[in-house]
Amino acid sequence: MHETYFTPGPSGLYYTVEQHAKKALRSGIASITHRGTQFKNIYKQVDTNLRELLRLPNDYKVLFTNSASEIWDLSTESLIREKSLHIVNGAFSEKFYKVVNNSEKEALLMSSEWGSFPKIDYSLVKQADHIAVTHNETSTGVSTPLETIYKIREQNPEAIISIDAVSSLPYLDIDYTKIDALYVSVQKCFGLPAGLGIWLVNDRCIARAEEVIKRKKELISYHNLLDLAKQAANYQTVSTPNVLNIHLLAQITSDMLNRGIQMIRSEIKYKAAIFYKMIEAHSKINLFVKDKTLRSDTIIVLNTNEHTTDLINFLESKKLIIGTGYGKMKNTQARIANFPTHSKEQFEMLTDLLETW
Amino acid sequence: MHETYFTPGPSGLYYTVEQHAKKALRSGIASITHRGTQFKNIYKQVDTNLRELLRLPNDYKVLFTNSASEIWDLSTESLIREKSLHIVNGAFSEKFYKVVNNSEKEALLMSSEWGSFPKIDYSLVKQADHIAVTHNETSTGVSTPLETIYKIREQNPEAIISIDAVSSLPYLDIDYTKIDALYVSVQKCFGLPAGLGIWLVNDRCIARAEEVIKRKKELISYHNLLDLAKQAANYQTVSTPNVLNIHLLAQITSDMLNRGIQMIRSEIKYKAAIFYKMIEAHSKINLFVKDKTLRSDTIIVLNTNEHTTDLINFLESKKLIIGTGYGKMKNTQARIANFPTHSKEQFEMLTDLLETW
Repeated sequence: MHETYFTPGPSGLYYTVEQHAKKALRSGIASITHRGTQFKNIYKQVDTNLRELLRLPNDYKVLFTNSASEIWDLSTESLIREKSLHIVNGAFSEKFYKVVNNSEKEALLMSSEWGSFPKIDYSLVKQADHIAVTHNETSTGVSTPLETIYKIREQNPEAIISIDAVSSLPYLDIDYTKIDALYVSVQKCFGLPAGLGIWLVNDRCIARAEEVIKRKKELISYHNLLDLAKQAANYQTVSTPNVLNIHLLAQITSDMLNRGIQMIRSEIKYKAAIFYKMIEAHSKINLFVKDKTLRSDTIIVLNTNEHTTDLINFLESKKLIIGTGYGKMKNTQARIANFPTHSKEQFEMLTDLLETW
Repeated sequence: MHETYFTPGPSGLYYTVEQHAKKALRSGIASITHRGTQFKNIYKQVDTNLRELLRLPNDYKVLFTNSASEIWDLSTESLIREKSLHIVNGAFSEKFYKVVNNSEKEALLMSSEWGSFPKIDYSLVKQADHIAVTHNETSTGVSTPLETIYKIREQNPEAIISIDAVSSLPYLDIDYTKIDALYVSVQKCFGLPAGLGIWLVNDRCIARAEEVIKRKKELISYHNLLDLAKQAANYQTVSTPNVLNIHLLAQITSDMLNRGIQMIRSEIKYKAAIFYKMIEAHSKINLFVKDKTLRSDTIIVLNTNEHTTDLINFLESKKLIIGTGYGKMKNTQARIANFPTHSKEQFEMLTDLLETW
């Protein structure tokens, strides 16, 4: 029996990936030119699938980047006019804040302790022309309530709202008309090998980028938003992309459509529910996120304290690999991913093992 | 029989890649954390292998990027003080020139027609603090004589010399003490799926980056050279890398070491020699690069004029896929890659077919 990876990312591959990848390698997909019809059709398939899976409005574009972290740079370059507000409650939201803070643009900060969510200061919200929200903090397991995002929109309809959904898409079911940009890496919920980012942007982002990039006097990124979008209009990329991963993304989004996104989402809800219920009654482990309304269904963070190594080793002996805490929490927490690839049976087994541990 | 890809990149996978990839997918390599020992060991293996394969001096660092084109941005940000000289004789050397020209730094230009190489103006060489040389122009099949690079170094020993070896490494056998930086993408001669760049930089690059980045007032790239190098010192990356491809790179560089780099290089020389000889006597096709001393051994560019489509279709009917000309040459030229994965037998077959065509 091989290991099952419940790590928060890279995580277990989506259960159909290995077969798709074998077939793709055999058929030469990794060797095709990215300027030909075959690649354009693959890109188009991803575009079509994601629009259906996520119910994307027509004015959204599906762009590829090399990673989600690259999008912090590209957003700073093209989406921020002067002031960007960052809601920071963990390591990843903080990283984006720091990127902007180290740039010539102004970074406004609204922060809270790890494991919680800041009280929204609407006077700050109204000052910003760009607002960055991390929907699902992979470092802490805090998920931003969608109503909070929608209320921010109401209070500042002019600002570009940019969502980090790295560890929640496509579980996340958001109203795309109330945000402007959303980005994700494929090695989390999509269950693909790392090395590809997806950036969904609406027409307001393009208009903003046209305004902001035009004024720019310094280096304009080779993969800047406007050039990505220009190429994407013809299902092309600016430079040679990770063709194999884009092909696999086309395949697994087709598989997800066949399975049904509601089924995938309800299974994740079910797995989270049984797991959280078990932990709440556990004698040695407790949940890091105390406020139930903030608990992520896809990234579950446990306070394991002095039991951390024991727990990780115990599960590893059963071929179940979970993640350590992030950064400063490495030795006192464990993180468990609940992604589409993790079956109900695998999660029930994990839950049972932990219950009696 | 499956297709053989002689396309200039993405090209055919190195002949051991499919097996390595199958094994890797099965064993969970794509799911391991990039912060753990297993990943560090993979990085270390690549580092060790590349040092041996290329005879890298000790002060070189082996860094990973998402692509080679990203390195144009990162070099502009960190390696250029004020003036960068670009030797432009094709599409890719021109792209780097344009990146710098669109930035706040000054781009000096020394250019020639496609298919040729400019006469070096040493007064311009002496003005630059960074000099960009495309060793092998993938768009035109022109290879820069190494003596030209070494003479530039002699005339301006202070400038950082940065080599684009995208379509020639590891065939390229260069004296690394006479250059400072070299970059490559893995989907060419290394025969891997696209989605990974390798950047080799010496201590002079690090010193330059420390000087240049310190002065910077605008956005500092998330994957800037100093942070890449800082992480690399511990065999780590700044963000989640393409772990699968890095693993495959470790595997195929081991395979190349077992085969012997001299053997690989002499086979490429042999394949180029028989192919060039055949084309020189061909009635319908001729060589784009007239000056023999400039002809690339790894990218062979043919003037196919009105025969372009016929030739490509004829070879495709034999399951041999070659590339079209690049950009403006798309309809009048064909490009053929001669990479380590292409066996002598495959090249002899291609040569024989073309000879009687």
